[in-house]
Parts: sequence; structure tokens; C-alpha cells
Amino acid sequence: MADTEINTAATSADTICAISTPPGLGGIAVARISGPHALATAQKIWRGKRSITAAGANTCIVGSVLDTRGEELDQAVATIFRAPHSFTGEDVAEISVHGSRWVQHELIMSLINAGARMAEAGEFSRRAFANGRMDLAQAEAVADIIASSSRAAQRIALSQMRGDFSRRIEHMRSQLLELAALLELELDFSEEDVEFASRERLIALATEVRDTTHRLADGFAAGSAIRQGVPVAIVGATNAGKSSLLNALAGDERAIVSDIHGTTRDVVEDIISIGDYTLRLKDTAGIRDTEDTVERLGIERSRRALREAAIILLVVDSTSPTNTAPWAEIDAAMADNPHIALIIAANKCDLAPTPRIDRPDSVVVPTSALTGQGIDSLRKAITDVADNIASTCHAGDPLIANARHYEALRDAAAAAERIIHGLSDGIPGDLVAQDLRDCISSLSAITGAISTPEILSTIFSRFCIGK
Amino acid sequence: MADTEINTAATSADTICAISTPPGLGGIAVARISGPHALATAQKIWRGKRSITAAGANTCIVGSVLDTRGEELDQAVATIFRAPHSFTGEDVAEISVHGSRWVQHELIMSLINAGARMAEAGEFSRRAFANGRMDLAQAEAVADIIASSSRAAQRIALSQMRGDFSRRIEHMRSQLLELAALLELELDFSEEDVEFASRERLIALATEVRDTTHRLADGFAAGSAIRQGVPVAIVGATNAGKSSLLNALAGDERAIVSDIHGTTRDVVEDIISIGDYTLRLKDTAGIRDTEDTVERLGIERSRRALREAAIILLVVDSTSPTNTAPWAEIDAAMADNPHIALIIAANKCDLAPTPRIDRPDSVVVPTSALTGQGIDSLRKAITDVADNIASTCHAGDPLIANARHYEALRDAAAAAERIIHGLSDGIPGDLVAQDLRDCISSLSAITGAISTPEILSTIFSRFCIGK
Repeated sequence: MADTEINTAATSADTICAISTPPGLGGIAVARISGPHALATAQKIWRGKRSITAAGANTCIVGSVLDTRGEELDQAVATIFRAPHSFTGEDVAEISVHGSRWVQHELIMSLINAGARMAEAGEFSRRAFANGRMDLAQAEAVADIIASSSRAAQRIALSQMRGDFSRRIEHMRSQLLELAALLELELDFSEEDVEFASRERLIALATEVRDTTHRLADGFAAGSAIRQGVPVAIVGATNAGKSSLLNALAGDERAIVSDIHGTTRDVVEDIISIGDYTLRLKDTAGIRDTEDTVERLGIERSRRALREAAIILLVVDSTSPTNTAPWAEIDAAMADNPHIALIIAANKCDLAPTPRIDRPDSVVVPTSALTGQGIDSLRKAITDVADNIASTCHAGDPLIANARHYEALRDAAAAAERIIHGLSDGIPGDLVAQDLRDCISSLSAITGAISTPEILSTIFSRFCIGK
Repeated sequence: MADTEINTAATSADTICAISTPPGLGGIAVARISGPHALATAQKIWRGKRSITAAGANTCIVGSVLDTRGEELDQAVATIFRAPHSFTGEDVAEISVHGSRWVQHELIMSLINAGARMAEAGEFSRRAFANGRMDLAQAEAVADIIASSSRAAQRIALSQMRGDFSRRIEHMRSQLLELAALLELELDFSEEDVEFASRERLIALATEVRDTTHRLADGFAAGSAIRQGVPVAIVGATNAGKSSLLNALAGDERAIVSDIHGTTRDVVEDIISIGDYTLRLKDTAGIRDTEDTVERLGIERSRRALREAAIILLVVDSTSPTNTAPWAEIDAAMADNPHIALIIAANKCDLAPTPRIDRPDSVVVPTSALTGQGIDSLRKAITDVADNIASTCHAGDPLIANARHYEALRDAAAAAERIIHGLSDGIPGDLVAQDLRDCISSLSAITGAISTPEILSTIFSRFCIGK
């Protein structure tokens, strides 16, 4: 098995550099330099009482950085990490300067002039992976933690970065590897009809792998909802006071969340944060039967939003109870996806009594965007649903939120299923061995024990520069 | 003299914290915590093999930060600085975490929960000043270096941050203080008609102070032009190819510079960077005599742009030499401000010979935005003028770019002039002593040896949070 052959290819003698702090103006900015010659390269642009090359590991020294002309660019603090005890596992210098755009730009130019090259997106993390500082799932969690916009999403990413998920995968993988080795040995001695690999143990293990990977894969919908935001479909006429209700719901946190907007792909949605969760709100205004083709498209989108929602939030105007909701569409969506929760906000409750709504499958919350009444209850109703989603996974199982991991888990589960059937049906050992290899290979892809440069490039190119 | 009485008032027992890196998403973000209890406060949210409180000065340790619930928020690196060897002169911890918005937000919340408070804008620098780590002019230079968008501007700020300007001021101030003490002593013994303070030395010193402060103040226009961008008035009809010429001039650097745009107050201008300089371009399209009131306002603005320019860049279309330039306005502006440089770009030189322009007071550069011909020469013509501006100051004099310093220098020069006149006219010692105090007081304001909380608040409120 070509188990770990690819990883070393990513190791490099290059010294890479990048600004690792967010782009723009700030009090300080930090340039990171990594590689076997990182310290000597950084020293070339350094002037100070103490030198970067002589500084001890995990210490910082004060001095100045020089520009491409060798003139003083800024006063700086350099922190020195020595291989293998650094983020990348290589020698690393982190140079902290004033957060001027000019200084940041010139510092990188100066480092390039000194022999470093600009790091590619995710290249520091890729080196950390290549040098065995973290496995692939952990490296992916670094990007996830940076992108996380809610406590729940950060929790999933942090757990994955700590290796909780990887350990589960590795546990299964190492057991399978052991049995695979015995099975291969058995095949080498096939004419002697010996059985090194216990069939019972193999069935038991394959069953455990199948069940575990299934269970982990089942958590993907929940993990994905938490990572990307719990999908909420808003239903209700405009005069029901939807937008002011949503503003009241989002409260002060809207400002923090709304500037993440640019990072989401689907700008039609509104993203707000409530409690520990990010919500992705889709307004389904205008679900009506119509002959008009263009309008029908909009209606189709609205119906899909309903079906794909974790929560349908129906806003009803308490002052005009005759205003009927699109019950047919709501019922169709809920029949299609039994996990959908229906929350009904009986709005304008300061002006009229709460209308009687005969829906035992829903939570009805009298609200007033004007007086703020019921807003906390509505928030709680929503976060209760989100809490339920977050806890759908089996106790102790990590929640997965990464589509690549989901695919690999599904593949591993399918291979495990084939092993079980194969063994029950008494098919030849070499066919079982193939399924076993497939199963191991799928699990190996998750932690990156097997990977190709193409897969790694795809994964790390989604990272930001400087990480 | 109540020389330094105010400064200690800014020292505080509070522990302050802020994200010091630019706002937004990035590989890493750094929270800075400062104050007498900074390390104990940071330790409250820290979990790791080594503790922040026990860590040595200028070392960094690896661990985790906790959120407000005491649960792990992120893996982190903490760097410890111990008073007085830190930026603020107090104990300081810098905690580097993943640059997620959520993690940054929660980290500050957690630090506040642990007893720190959110730092005000510039409060770290204000503490550095209060604790004698830098004087006021140096602290102001920290903000300038962060805002600097060109090499020339960064040069001025860096020199000021290193104390080149402050040392000049302190040199004059300490000599004046010595003479003032002698003069005050003399006044105490006035009935005895002794002369402790040599009148000759006093006149010589006051003359030196007057000349030096005058000279330094004279550099303000140049320093200000370099700090905020050299003002360039563009003249020429649209069909002369102005905008494509400007794009060719700005080249690749435009992208870097244009996102500084939002930080400038006057958005009518275009800001580009050429060589070491930032240029502020004002288009004066449409200088024509007119009866129309609204149009007249625009013309008045254009005329002012011409008068206030350091460079008038006239773009002429070589293919239509009949297209006349607004010579009357240009001549009026140049008569008004003899420092203005006139540069004429004879554009579209690939299509027609360079028209004869009889202006010995100008530099004529044949250019073609299309072929790129002459663009480098035009750049050089512009940076030559900017080099001239940068070198208008007396050799060895620091260039000042701060309006507050300019005012103070002017006040000091005026007081020195009064001292010289007073001594020549033989006015009484107590009146001379008053002028001497005024002169010292103006110089003291620059370095902050005398300051008020109001002045300090005004200065530091212009800083960014986290610095």
C-alpha cells in the first residue's frame, strides 16, 4: 500500500513568507517566514542588538526591519520558533511591525528580496501537514475555525483541530490495517489453506466500521447546518412586520454578522447570529399559484427553500387573522422533510389578541417587534431547534461539517458493507482484501495518510494567504 | 514651572485589552493586554503546560484560551513582556489566535469577563507616553507610520518615531530652561542689580531658537504634502487622453493605493502612488469663463486646486494643437504660488509630432498612453519635483508633517522674536522672563513635557483601537 508516499513531496527547501494578519490597517501586522532557511533570510533584513539567527526558540527580540534598499523600514519585534516546535514544523520567524499598508507591503518585498518567496494560500498549513504537525482533517479545521462565525461552528472546528475526529478515524484504520496485513499474508500462503485473519473478528470490525461511519456521516447535515448557518425559511406577508421582527431578533449582533456577508456565496440570503448559532434566512415572499412563467420560477425557489429549511418561521399579523398563510406549501415541505420545525410568530401582539392557530406540530410565539415582547421567547424557540440539531449526533461522536469527509465516510461505509456481505457469502479472500483496501483507503483520505498533490492543492487553495 | 505635572494622571491601574491586528478575517489575530495586572488577567483565560504569570520576559508559550464559559475557545500563543520593557512600559501579554471574527470577538469578551476593559483608541500609545517610553511627538509618529502610504511619508514618520525631531526640540528647550532658571533667580535678587543670565547668551540662544523653529516650520508645507500626498492639478480636455495617461502613470500600484481611498476625507480626489510618493490628483476639467452661477462654483474650485497644487500637470493632445490650454488660469496660479512646477504631457505622441510649446518655465514630455512611450519620463519629471519638495528642508533638519507641531513651532518662533526685541530694547527682566516661559511652553507642548488631558485625548482619539 502506497500509504504515505505522497506527503513528503510537499516538503520544500523554499523559504516562504506572507502577512498572516488580516489585510488592511491596524495597530500591528505580523509577517510569517517559514522554511529551513527562514531565520537566515529574516536576519538579512534585521538590524538589532540581538540577531534572529542567534535567538533562542520561543523568544522574541526587538529591533528594526530593513527595506529593499537596506534602509530602516520600521521598528519591529521578531519571535523565533525552531524546528520542529513550530506551526509548520520548520524554523519560523514571526515579525511584528506597525500595521501600515506601506510597511506591510515593503516588508514582504524586502523578504522576497532577501530570498524568500510569497507563500501560496494555505501553504503554511500544508507544510504543517507535510511535516506531520497535524493530519489533513486537522489542517482543514484550521480553515474552518478561521471562517467560523458562531460558537457552535467554532466548537466543531476546534474539536476537529484537536484531533477528536481524526482519532476516531485512526482507531478504525489501524485495526483494519492490521487485519489487512494478516489477510494479505494469508493470500501469499493461499495454497496452504491457513486462516491468519479471523473471519469473525473481521466481520465484527467491518460491522463496527460500517455503523460508526454511517453514524458519523449522518451527522453531516447537522454539522453542515451549524457550520454554514441553520437554514430558516421565512414565510409571511410583508405587512405582517417580517423585517422589523427580524431586526429585533438579530439585535446588536447583526452588525457583527452582516459584514461576513461578502464571504457567503448566495447573497440572496440574510445571515444573522442568535445565541451560539448562525442562521441563514431565506425570505419566501410570494408563494402563490400563478400562470406567469417568471413568477413560477420564484415560487419554485421558495418551495425549495421551504423543503431545505431546518426551521420554517411563519410570521402572522395578529391584527388581520383573515390573512391566510400558504399552508399547502408548508405542509408539502414538512411531509417531504419530517425534520423541519415550524415556528409561528403571531406578530403585532401589542395590537390584537393572539389568533387561534390549530397546528399542534408548531410552536406559536406572540411577538411585537415594536415593544420587544416575545422576542426572547422567539429566540429561545429558534435556539431550542438549533440545540436539537446540534445534538442529533450520537453522544460522544464528533459532528462532521466537511463534504469531503462526508463522501469518504460514505465510501468507507459502503466498502465495510461489501466486506460484511462478502464474508457472509464466503467469497474468496482476494476479493475481500480488495474491499478492505477500499475501506482503508477511504478512511486514509480523511486524515491525509493517502493523498495526492491535486487533492492537497484543492484543499489548501481554499485557505487564506498567510495561514 | 508646572512642567511635567500632568503626565502621571494618565497612568492607570486598569488592565486594558484590544485586538491590535487589522479588523477582519486572517490567518492570525493578536489581542494585546496591558496594565499592572495584565498577566494575571490573561492567565485567568489561559490553559497550558506553562502559565503566563510564570513565563519569562520576552518569551512565548503555547496553550489554549478559554471563552466566557470557561470552555476552550482556540489554541493560542502568548507572548509575555514585563514592565518596563514593553511597548506601554507596563506588563503586557500578546495573545495570538486564529483570525476568525468569532474567536476575536469572544477572546475580547473573555478578557473583559476576566477583569480587563476594552482599550480606548490609542490608549496603549497613551500609556507608553505616560510611562515615559516615548514622548508625545514620538507617539504621534506611531499613528503616522500606521497611516503612511508611501516610502517618503513612512520616512518622515519613522524619523520622528526614532526621536530625531524630539531631540532637536529638547536641545533648544533644555538650554532655554537653564537660562530661564538663571533669569528667575535674577528676579528674586532684583534689588541687588546682579545679572546671572548673560544677555548676550540669551540673545544668541533666542536667535538660534527663532531661526531653527522658523526653518522647521517652513518644512511643514513640504512635510504635509508628502504625508498626505503631493497635490497635483490635472489640466486638459477629456479628449487629450487624460484618464488613460493617469492609468498608465499609476501602473500596478494603483490597486494598492486606491483602497486607501476610504481613509481620505476628500473623496473627489484620486490618489495614486509613484515611486516613493503619494500623489493627490485633482482634475480641473472645465475651466472656462461662464455666466452660469453653478458652473462658476466649479470653476472657482478648479482655480483653487491650481493655486494649491505643487504640480500642475497639463495634458495636451498632440494631434489637435489648436486645442488651447487655460493659460490665463495657469499663469495666475503660478504668479500666486511661485513654488508650483508646470509639467506638460504632449500626449498621443505616437500619432503626431510634439507641438511646439513656448514655456521655458515648464518641462515638456512627449507621451503616449497607448504605446507607453514617455510614461517613465513623465514619472521621473513628477518624482523629480517631489524629490525637490522633500529636500526643501535644511540639510539635517527633520521634515515636520503635523499641524500641531507647526503651530507650536510658529508660537515658539514668535516668542523668541519677542525675547530678542525685548532684550535689544532693554525691557525689564520680568517681561523677558514671560516671553521665555511662552517659548519654553510652546516647545514643551510638542514633546508633551507639558500637556493637558484634553490635548492628549484629542491626539490619541485619532489613533486606531489596539494601538
